Amino acid sequence: MSFTPRFRDIAHLGHIELLTPKPEESLKFFTEIVGLSESGRQGDSVYLRAWGDYEFATLKLTVAKAPGLGHLALRTADAETLDLLVADLQQHGFQGKWLESDLGHGRAFRFPSPDGHQLELYFETTWFEAPSESATYMRNNPQRRGTRGISPRRLDHINILASDVKANREFYQKRLGMKLTEQIIFDDGAEMGGWLTATNKSYDIAITRDNAGGHGRLHHLTYFTDTREEVLRAADIFVESGVTIETGPHKHAIGQTFFLYVFEPGGNRFELASGGYSILAPDWKPVVWTQADRARGQAWGLKTVESFHTYGTPPIE
Amino acid sequence: MSFTPRFRDIAHLGHIELLTPKPEESLKFFTEIVGLSESGRQGDSVYLRAWGDYEFATLKLTVAKAPGLGHLALRTADAETLDLLVADLQQHGFQGKWLESDLGHGRAFRFPSPDGHQLELYFETTWFEAPSESATYMRNNPQRRGTRGISPRRLDHINILASDVKANREFYQKRLGMKLTEQIIFDDGAEMGGWLTATNKSYDIAITRDNAGGHGRLHHLTYFTDTREEVLRAADIFVESGVTIETGPHKHAIGQTFFLYVFEPGGNRFELASGGYSILAPDWKPVVWTQADRARGQAWGLKTVESFHTYGTPPIE
Amino acid sequence: MSFTPRFRDIAHLGHIELLTPKPEESLKFFTEIVGLSESGRQGDSVYLRAWGDYEFATLKLTVAKAPGLGHLALRTADAETLDLLVADLQQHGFQGKWLESDLGHGRAFRFPSPDGHQLELYFETTWFEAPSESATYMRNNPQRRGTRGISPRRLDHINILASDVKANREFYQKRLGMKLTEQIIFDDGAEMGGWLTATNKSYDIAITRDNAGGHGRLHHLTYFTDTREEVLRAADIFVESGVTIETGPHKHAIGQTFFLYVFEPGGNRFELASGGYSILAPDWKPVVWTQADRARGQAWGLKTVESFHTYGTPPIE
Amino acid sequence: MSFTPRFRDIAHLGHIELLTPKPEESLKFFTEIVGLSESGRQGDSVYLRAWGDYEFATLKLTVAKAPGLGHLALRTADAETLDLLVADLQQHGFQGKWLESDLGHGRAFRFPSPDGHQLELYFETTWFEAPSESATYMRNNPQRRGTRGISPRRLDHINILASDVKANREFYQKRLGMKLTEQIIFDDGAEMGGWLTATNKSYDIAITRDNAGGHGRLHHLTYFTDTREEVLRAADIFVESGVTIETGPHKHAIGQTFFLYVFEPGGNRFELASGGYSILAPDWKPVVWTQADRARGQAWGLKTVESFHTYGTPPIE
Repeated sequence: MSFTPRFRDIAHLGHIELLTPKPEESLKFFTEIVGLSESGRQGDSVYLRAWGDYEFATLKLTVAKAPGLGHLALRTADAETLDLLVADLQQHGFQGKWLESDLGHGRAFRFPSPDGHQLELYFETTWFEAPSESATYMRNNPQRRGTRGISPRRLDHINILASDVKANREFYQKRLGMKLTEQIIFDDGAEMGGWLTATNKSYDIAITRDNAGGHGRLHHLTYFTDTREEVLRAADIFVESGVTIETGPHKHAIGQTFFLYVFEPGGNRFELASGGYSILAPDWKPVVWTQADRARGQAWGLKTVESFHTYGTPPIE
Repeated sequence: MSFTPRFRDIAHLGHIELLTPKPEESLKFFTEIVGLSESGRQGDSVYLRAWGDYEFATLKLTVAKAPGLGHLALRTADAETLDLLVADLQQHGFQGKWLESDLGHGRAFRFPSPDGHQLELYFETTWFEAPSESATYMRNNPQRRGTRGISPRRLDHINILASDVKANREFYQKRLGMKLTEQIIFDDGAEMGGWLTATNKSYDIAITRDNAGGHGRLHHLTYFTDTREEVLRAADIFVESGVTIETGPHKHAIGQTFFLYVFEPGGNRFELASGGYSILAPDWKPVVWTQADRARGQAWGLKTVESFHTYGTPPIE
Repeated sequence: MSFTPRFRDIAHLGHIELLTPKPEESLKFFTEIVGLSESGRQGDSVYLRAWGDYEFATLKLTVAKAPGLGHLALRTADAETLDLLVADLQQHGFQGKWLESDLGHGRAFRFPSPDGHQLELYFETTWFEAPSESATYMRNNPQRRGTRGISPRRLDHINILASDVKANREFYQKRLGMKLTEQIIFDDGAEMGGWLTATNKSYDIAITRDNAGGHGRLHHLTYFTDTREEVLRAADIFVESGVTIETGPHKHAIGQTFFLYVFEPGGNRFELASGGYSILAPDWKPVVWTQADRARGQAWGLKTVESFHTYGTPPIE
Repeated sequence: MSFTPRFRDIAHLGHIELLTPKPEESLKFFTEIVGLSESGRQGDSVYLRAWGDYEFATLKLTVAKAPGLGHLALRTADAETLDLLVADLQQHGFQGKWLESDLGHGRAFRFPSPDGHQLELYFETTWFEAPSESATYMRNNPQRRGTRGISPRRLDHINILASDVKANREFYQKRLGMKLTEQIIFDDGAEMGGWLTATNKSYDIAITRDNAGGHGRLHHLTYFTDTREEVLRAADIFVESGVTIETGPHKHAIGQTFFLYVFEPGGNRFELASGGYSILAPDWKPVVWTQADRARGQAWGLKTVESFHTYGTPPIE
């Protein structure tokens, strides 16, 4: 078979399943404070989306004994590409299974990544249709802009931890056609992080080293606000709501995004981000950040807090 | 030959050649007020770029008897795709010629669009290399952020006028693989505008009806600022510099961009814009705005000024 | 008696009583869309405040047959100054009466201004005390920052109409010690507007000419947001909520405030504003804008809409 | 004599004389990076102002062996108040002398504060008159808005260190009529900081404890930008210019200002700030922050960097 995965075979990050041992508190966090909306419920899961997300759901919140990543789903360019990618995966020894459907999307191929993160590839999806009370005159929005709590516009990206960054980022490049845009390579040659994109955003998936030696762990998931002012406003709202801010607001050197990290009640790290830059060049060469660069701190010099280097979910005993 | 142009065969809008009968005043406008930088000069042209543009130049300012569009250039996904697109164009009767090179890029195929706009397809390009005085610690920026005048980050899009909107937007869809994202269709079925993208931005090229019945005319070209606050600041700077604001700052319903339109001294309309939304769905269905929608004005109700419907360059006697 | 009213005898604009023939719709507008909170009710009135207002109420919404201004209240520097100002007013022929109290403040002297606006001077006030659910760790805020709807921070100013601008602005200067900061004087010497302050804000009360020849009419009242981005967000919210935007967002040349004007359901004009400049100079000389200046439009050239020159409440038959 | 200093006898902070052992580098910092303009030179000093400052100068940069505060000057409400305040000071044992004039202002009374900071009281001042190239159509601005570097609008406040915070803040309250708005009082009753205002801004002078036991030392001086976005942009500019950011951008709990601290080349700490809140209440009660409050960090939890507690100018051996 002559198929080789290419950039754009994956259209974008579709949704994330987040595990929480405190489902009620987590749900309240994501709906009342963050301002996502509930699209539906099934089994142990509640399906959520931001006001600008076009699909039925971008966050699936599932009851579990410990926090962590249930799975992350990538939408393919079309149905044919989905089949081609899956065939290619199988040829390369990736075992998985087809799921008939989930609330909000059609058949999906579920398999573990090299580091053990559950991945899902799917194409058929349910477009969100706004009920009349949130219908909008802005025909290019799926619904009226949200006003509850922080109300980010859409899901942005996920940051996963991996014990072997290189092997994993190569998997996303080779098997899924994603583009490597930025990297951290330390003086000893160790890859400490890789940022990959399926779009013109500078990243959709970030992989950073699991310094605890875990597998399949989550660093954080991120929703996007149109403005940095909304991130600043979110910081006020989080603090007033008793949510712990881990670090930020500040600007990442990598990706240039303006960030704010907190912990949701279930224990998972959650980010709000805005800004960043677009990568238009089809022949972009990955930007490499050195150990010395990282020692300088974030864009304006803020030192990265220690927990950022060590904490992931599920926690490691 | 089985080649059919697909989305992403065109990587992005590369550069625009703008004609000006007042070259010195136009150059001063673009460098001192807008804050672009000069990359080089050749013949009757000065080559300019914004601080975030990765290529050698995104604006070629050329002396001419009247204002208007010299040409617009699109960068292809790779060199092979360039050849495939050109062969396809020729098969479909588009006559053009290969140009060896221009300052900043390699061989390019130049041909007229159905409405007579000069188009250029190219792949080989000169990446901008920052001289030491504008080198940056931000490895993902081509140079230090600009601080002169308004200093937008990058070229964003072009809006061309066409007597037959439908024929022209179909050309960009079918021959160049661009995606139609939004449209204006009046009650009588007439297409008044079409917005097309080669990226995740909601548009890279806009085509609106030339109500004066001209051909090959320019409505405006647009540079992008990271924030709406920079557009508001730009309005102060333009007014204080004696530049005439045509309309704005305000928000487009179409594209959701926050806009500001002025006239550069040569007579061409120039826009600064920020915001907008991303299109992630690979199967996006074009949004259609009706005559009634347009009668409502821009996003917050501002009536579109009359000149916006009639003025283009070159002027029509 | 040697007392002469001086700058700072009036501390600030305290509250505004707004009349509405559609009390339920107006209340819903001010609470759900604007995001003010209800402090209490008495008789035909509902008392409201913004999250940053330190007093019990800054807006008293009262049922009436027609929209318009009930009264506007100014808080004095202290209790002694209240008595001195009232004595001075009476000496200068202003008839009024002492009101024992109102919900939220103590005794107040009520009297008509030269144009017939009901004014109230008071000092004793009820400081807002946040219930536990809106308590804040920000000890310098009266309560937690609001998140419902637009949620401006505080009452900012009032703009009243007067048939004789000069006589009325002189009244606020001479009898209340307010400072004239900006003026519009037309070529024929007619005063078209006067802006007066009791603080470092460039105005707390604006008086513009009632071109309809009315008396005691209201042009608009204004709440303040910390950022211009919140005004832009408010424009989205207003449009999505079906509220008619009269004009804006744009920047006033006078006062430099970033503005947005809408009509509340009762028919009164309501403004959200941000920005502006501070007047620190104790010997500030009033800025005079000419007829030619005004013909240029607002700060960035937006022409003032016709209704802005003619519409006030109560309407004139 | 029955005169007792009252709130508003001091109109505002007028200017600050800053000492620098690296005059050329400091001048370049304040003009090219910060974007202040030179108004004149005299002796060992260069006089600077921001584009929105109405006086001739707000910063006097003077060559010295070590960094530190030359003097800080407060403008009185009028000439008579100046004489009354000086007479009162002399009655209370403050020794000083009248200076005939300085570049930009008339006679001034110079004397040391309890902690040894040189203070100057003056009223007569030179209003800045814009040369034609920076004239503005905005009649309420002294000149065209600045575009060089960061270009803050105006001088905002000064933070001085004092070994005895209580004695010094009482001096500014009792002898100068300033209002105490916020305080830090530790569990043992020690006053660690006091914030005082002469305006509606929440502070014009901050006094924090000199933990090194020095006298007459400077913590920082601050210029104001209209928006938080300008502070974020300033952070980019500082980093790209090689200026060391000490801390920020972040939000102060006290004063609610959005801050950014750097060191100018002479060694003095410099702040850019935006936002904050207005104090309108004439009977404002000082907000007291406890030791536990301060342990929480700044508004969003950022821990105050150690140097902030220890570094002042002149340095203490």
